[in-house]
Amino acid sequence: MNSLSHVPPGFRFHPTDEELVDYYLRKKITSRRIDLDVIKDIDLYKIEPWDLQELCRMGTEEQSDWYFFSHKDKKYPTGTRTNRATAAGFWKATGRDKAIYSKHDLIGMRKTLVYYKGRAPNGQKSDFIMHEYRLETDPNGAPQASFP
Amino acid sequence: MNSLSHVPPGFRFHPTDEELVDYYLRKKITSRRIDLDVIKDIDLYKIEPWDLQELCRMGTEEQSDWYFFSHKDKKYPTGTRTNRATAAGFWKATGRDKAIYSKHDLIGMRKTLVYYKGRAPNGQKSDFIMHEYRLETDPNGAPQASFP
Repeated sequence: MNSLSHVPPGFRFHPTDEELVDYYLRKKITSRRIDLDVIKDIDLYKIEPWDLQELCRMGTEEQSDWYFFSHKDKKYPTGTRTNRATAAGFWKATGRDKAIYSKHDLIGMRKTLVYYKGRAPNGQKSDFIMHEYRLETDPNGAPQASFP
Repeated sequence: MNSLSHVPPGFRFHPTDEELVDYYLRKKITSRRIDLDVIKDIDLYKIEPWDLQELCRMGTEEQSDWYFFSHKDKKYPTGTRTNRATAAGFWKATGRDKAIYSKHDLIGMRKTLVYYKGRAPNGQKSDFIMHEYRLETDPNGAPQASFP
């Protein structure tokens, strides 16, 4: 709520993929100041999707999208596989990653994930969808700007 | 473009009816400062709808809605009827005015108008639609915040 106090009435946060990657994610990774602290830092794998709504709230309105930064959690300390489990379920990639362009330059990728309750390979599919953004220049180990 | 330089990336102007009336129109009428000069002043009856797009542009994006303030033009100096003709056509009200509430208080009304090319009672209906907002406390003679 406070973080939105500098945006005049009538403005809504509806960023494009390009804005999320080229402005918000790039600034976050390079630790540069972001104009307005609208995207929260969370630890996605310690949080269930139904708890994100409170944590990532903007203002007082109904929201259907929530935005956050989260570090990837490695499955094994020495490996490159990502641990996508939470206490109650897990996030599973679906479909193909989508390329994000700025003019004609490839600047990032967007992965789509679905939340399942339970443990893989079982688990009950939910309606929670997440888009995980990464810079194309550094696909691993970088903070992500995502929304379920 | 310049007027949007203080809004961080990703924010789009999608005001509710309540915000248009209770913030933008109310401040305009009482000559109070509006945080960001996003709504232009124009003389609607000297402008054809296809020329609004340039005048009321915000930023560099594609827009389908344009916002502006305009004074009502009286048909006769002593009367209360509104002149809604432009050089090339006229705006004609359609449907019922919609009441705008803030919580449970009636704060304003929204009239919907359609643009016709030519002269009444003839004229060729166009796809241009305008919403004309007025404060409920002073329905006549007040500046309007509208968009076609």
